[in-house]
Amino acid sequence: MNTHFPDSAFLHELANVASQQTLPRFRTQNLTIDTKPKEGERFDPVTEADREAERAMRALIAARYPDHAILGEEFGASGDGPLQWVLDPVDGTRPFLCGLPVWGTLIGLLHNGRAVMGMMSQPHTGERFWSDGERAWASDFHGQRQLQSRHSVRLDQAILHTTAPPSAAHAAQIDFATLVDRTRMTRYGGECYAMAMLAAGHIDICVEFALQPYDIVALIPLIEHAGGRVTTVKGERAERGGPVIASGCPALHEQVLEIVNGHHHG
Amino acid sequence: MNTHFPDSAFLHELANVASQQTLPRFRTQNLTIDTKPKEGERFDPVTEADREAERAMRALIAARYPDHAILGEEFGASGDGPLQWVLDPVDGTRPFLCGLPVWGTLIGLLHNGRAVMGMMSQPHTGERFWSDGERAWASDFHGQRQLQSRHSVRLDQAILHTTAPPSAAHAAQIDFATLVDRTRMTRYGGECYAMAMLAAGHIDICVEFALQPYDIVALIPLIEHAGGRVTTVKGERAERGGPVIASGCPALHEQVLEIVNGHHHG
Repeated sequence: MNTHFPDSAFLHELANVASQQTLPRFRTQNLTIDTKPKEGERFDPVTEADREAERAMRALIAARYPDHAILGEEFGASGDGPLQWVLDPVDGTRPFLCGLPVWGTLIGLLHNGRAVMGMMSQPHTGERFWSDGERAWASDFHGQRQLQSRHSVRLDQAILHTTAPPSAAHAAQIDFATLVDRTRMTRYGGECYAMAMLAAGHIDICVEFALQPYDIVALIPLIEHAGGRVTTVKGERAERGGPVIASGCPALHEQVLEIVNGHHHG
Repeated sequence: MNTHFPDSAFLHELANVASQQTLPRFRTQNLTIDTKPKEGERFDPVTEADREAERAMRALIAARYPDHAILGEEFGASGDGPLQWVLDPVDGTRPFLCGLPVWGTLIGLLHNGRAVMGMMSQPHTGERFWSDGERAWASDFHGQRQLQSRHSVRLDQAILHTTAPPSAAHAAQIDFATLVDRTRMTRYGGECYAMAMLAAGHIDICVEFALQPYDIVALIPLIEHAGGRVTTVKGERAERGGPVIASGCPALHEQVLEIVNGHHHG
């Protein structure tokens, strides 16, 4: 069995073949939109951009690493073994449909269930954010550089981000309202792009109420190797998704977990 | 008095000088952030990017059209006469601070109080969306093309966008919750970028609860010449800001106004 770890060049190759399928379909008028609602949702859009990008990445992995397992948003799980790719061809299909550039292709690698490498690729802006398993990197209009999340941030100065306000059911489990009250500024809409900006030191806290594994695995090494923390709302490893909190500053993360779990005072 | 109308090349010149001040400061770590809270707000960020970009645009207008009046977010009103420029150097200072590309420089022109030309420029993506007073145009990675908003959209298929969920005070005035229930999908976070995507036919309805004139004047000609409608929540011209609704489809706009004003049935 091939348990060789790929290097980060392979992450870029995967992002390249995905971009060839997503970018030409971005901001076009005749995209066929299907819906595959999960529990509790009315509308969960999927397009040929999602499906073709995942097909292209799966084909490249099968050719290069035929013994690696794959879990993808569109085509599920295949193969087994200690190394598993976790793919979300378009994280943020909703902003993709809206023409907004805050979506990304997520490419993660699990080793024995733990996220070890990952990339977020945004082809419209030409940006990539990734971890090779040792450090976190960005390539954007400022050039290629190592990423460091923002440390030593007081809660009342922190920038909070989430994709959408919580449903009543989520709000009953996670005290997001208190977190909004205690932080400096709350912004909505961002998906994986906001998590990349947390790794880059521009956002301090990201809260997502119901992630799937393919929404977060690729981002875990990026955030951790940038110096941040990412866990479930209960403080456990986030590889399986669920309600997930990321913080640029590890000390801040403990405070945030206390607040969202209702253990704060005053 | 010089009441010659500029052509759209001058909109591009203004966007160029603004970009020179905003883009190098975007996604940097040592940006000084001041706050200038308006009524009811805790934190309204402003940076040297906002101030320097407005200074640069004001200088270019003063040199080329010394008799034109100017209203800018950072430096207020100057001059008078039938032609007034309305400038927001960074619409979306919050996403600018977060490193997200959904901000833009807004450049509008009023003639006797009515918006006649306007541009939204996003320098990070290199995109511009503008109206020359006759048509609406985009320049993005698909090239330069005329924009048309999406027509013949049923309410239950419509994509709704707003920057942030309404405060309790705004929700008491505008029935946003019913609009969310009646539409297909609601997305948050977007500012001027979402309005440009409405003109481009990707978003059907934008609701903003409390705009200033400089947040909307530049976007009115863009939306109207793309075939959409933009009014206050009461159906009046939107040049003075306030709660503003934009719709890609004029027939849909009437339905939306009825709903947000509580005049819907069932």
